[in-house]
Amino acid sequence: MERQLSVRPAHAQPAARRFTIPVRVYYQDTDAGGMVFHATYLDFMERVRMDWLRAIGFEIPKMVETHAAMFVVRSANVDYLKPARLGDALDVSLALVRIGGAQLVLDQRVTRSGEELVTATIQLACIGVPDFRPARVPEALRLECTRWLAPEVVPA
Amino acid sequence: MERQLSVRPAHAQPAARRFTIPVRVYYQDTDAGGMVFHATYLDFMERVRMDWLRAIGFEIPKMVETHAAMFVVRSANVDYLKPARLGDALDVSLALVRIGGAQLVLDQRVTRSGEELVTATIQLACIGVPDFRPARVPEALRLECTRWLAPEVVPA
Amino acid sequence: MERQLSVRPAHAQPAARRFTIPVRVYYQDTDAGGMVFHATYLDFMERVRMDWLRAIGFEIPKMVETHAAMFVVRSANVDYLKPARLGDALDVSLALVRIGGAQLVLDQRVTRSGEELVTATIQLACIGVPDFRPARVPEALRLECTRWLAPEVVPA
Amino acid sequence: MERQLSVRPAHAQPAARRFTIPVRVYYQDTDAGGMVFHATYLDFMERVRMDWLRAIGFEIPKMVETHAAMFVVRSANVDYLKPARLGDALDVSLALVRIGGAQLVLDQRVTRSGEELVTATIQLACIGVPDFRPARVPEALRLECTRWLAPEVVPA
Repeated sequence: MERQLSVRPAHAQPAARRFTIPVRVYYQDTDAGGMVFHATYLDFMERVRMDWLRAIGFEIPKMVETHAAMFVVRSANVDYLKPARLGDALDVSLALVRIGGAQLVLDQRVTRSGEELVTATIQLACIGVPDFRPARVPEALRLECTRWLAPEVVPA
Repeated sequence: MERQLSVRPAHAQPAARRFTIPVRVYYQDTDAGGMVFHATYLDFMERVRMDWLRAIGFEIPKMVETHAAMFVVRSANVDYLKPARLGDALDVSLALVRIGGAQLVLDQRVTRSGEELVTATIQLACIGVPDFRPARVPEALRLECTRWLAPEVVPA
Repeated sequence: MERQLSVRPAHAQPAARRFTIPVRVYYQDTDAGGMVFHATYLDFMERVRMDWLRAIGFEIPKMVETHAAMFVVRSANVDYLKPARLGDALDVSLALVRIGGAQLVLDQRVTRSGEELVTATIQLACIGVPDFRPARVPEALRLECTRWLAPEVVPA
Repeated sequence: MERQLSVRPAHAQPAARRFTIPVRVYYQDTDAGGMVFHATYLDFMERVRMDWLRAIGFEIPKMVETHAAMFVVRSANVDYLKPARLGDALDVSLALVRIGGAQLVLDQRVTRSGEELVTATIQLACIGVPDFRPARVPEALRLECTRWLAPEVVPA
C-alpha cells in the first residue's frame, strides 16, 4: 500500500520514497544448502543503507567528521519468505518508517523480479563519536529524512 | 525467569536447559566501527545451533540422510544491547522455546562474563530434502527436543 | 607492460583485454583495524570472475548444465600493497594470463583511482560435475578465452 | 621435513614448533558448491594467528597499547589441495618460518585427520600505530619468536 501512494521514481532519486540498489548473488553469499546464507541478507541491507546515506549527503566519514555521529543497528526483525540462489539478480531497498529523537526505523526488502524474498524492520540508533553514547539525529539529516517519510507516518 | 527455573547443569549436557559454546572475536568478525558487525552475531548463533544438533545426535549430514530433512531460518528477531569487541571471549547459547509441527523456536543469547550483549528469537522451519517444502520435524528429534523444553512450555 | 600492449577498450567489452567491475567498500568488508579485511579482497575478486563468466556467456548454472563443469580456485598468490578503507570506490579486474588443458590462470587487481592496492595471480581448476574430478576446459569457453589472451601469451 | 625435526608437543605449548587450533566447518563457511569457500580458509588462518599471539602474550590490544604496533598481511600464497565440507572437524596451524626486521613469515596449514587440505605462506608486516608505517617487530616479541623458529632457520 505504501508503495501505491508513491508518485516518485523508485530508484536512487533524492526525493524517492523507496531507495533501491541491485545486488548480485555470488558464491560468497551462498552456503552448502545451495541458497543465500541467512545472515548475508543483513549484509545486503547494510549496503543499501550506506548507499542511501551517501546519496542524501551523509556518507559515513562525513557524518563522523561533521556531526560527530554514526548509526548502529539496535534491532533487526527479519522474515525469510523465499530463498535467493546463486547468480540471482536481486533488488534491495529501504523506506524510512519513523524518525525518533535518537533513532531511525527502516523497512527493508529483498526482491527478485518483484517477488519479495526477505523483509525486515531495522532500528538504527544514533550514537556520538567517540563516546558511543545515544545522540540526537543531526538536524540536517532529520530534515532530509522528512522528505523520505510516507505521508501517513509522522515523526515520533 | 526461565533460567531461575533451571535446575540442570548449563553446559553441553544432553539434558541441559541451555546449550552454550564459547566464541572468540577475531578481526574478521569486527568492522571499521571497532565492534562486532551486527550480521556476525547471526553467524555465532548458527554455530551453536549446529553444535547443539550434533550434540543431540542430529548433525546436518545425518538429518539429511536419515530423515530427508533440514532446518532453515524462517525469522530472526534480534536485539543488540551492547557491543562486543575484538578479542572478547563470548558465550553463545540457545534454549528451546517451542516445538511446532514443522518448526522450532529458539531463544538465543550472546553474553560476555554473564552480561547480555545480544538476544534473539530464531524461528527454524523444517523442510524436506530435496523438495525444500515444509516438513514435519522428525519424531526422533521431537522426542529429544522435549527434554530441552522449559517446564512451563508445552509442545504446540 | 601488458597493459601498454592493449589496444582494446578496457571495460566490460567482450573483446577487452581486461574486465573490470566497480566495488564499493561497506562496513561488512572492513575490520577493527579500520581497513578492508585481507580475505575480503578474495571475495571482490570472485565477484569479477563470476561477472566475467556471465558476460562471455558461461555463467555458473549454464556451465554446470551445458558443460557439466565448474571452476574451483587451485591457488591464490596475493600481494597487499596499500589498504582500502570504508566507503572507498574500488575497481576490481581480471586479465587472462594462460589457458591450460584443465585450468585458467588470471591476473587480478584491485585499484582505487588507478592506484594498485592489491594484486593477485589466481589459478582456477576446471572440474567435472558431479564427480568433482579435473576436467578439460570446455572447448566453447576455451575459444572465447583466446580472445582475452594477451598477444604475447599462447595457450599451454 | 620440518615437522620430523620437531621434538616438542604440537598443541598450544609456549615452546611448541607448531601451534594448532581446532576449527569446525559451519554453514557460513561453505558455498553453493558444497565446499568451504576459498576465502574462508584465510579467516581460519587468521584465527590461529590471533590465538597464537594471545598464547605467547602479545594479544592485539596489548600489542597496540604496550608496543604501539600491529601486524597486517603483506602477502598470502595459498594452495588448495582438497576441499573441506560442512561439518568437518579441521586442524588449523602455523609455524614460524622467518623473522625479519619488520616482518614475520608463517607456514600455515589446514588439515583434516592429518590430511593436508590447504597450505599457505603468509607474510606479516609489522606497522606502527597510529601512523600505520612499517615498524620494527617489538624486541620482546622477537625474543619469544626465536623459540618458535625451526632449528635450520635463522633470523634475517
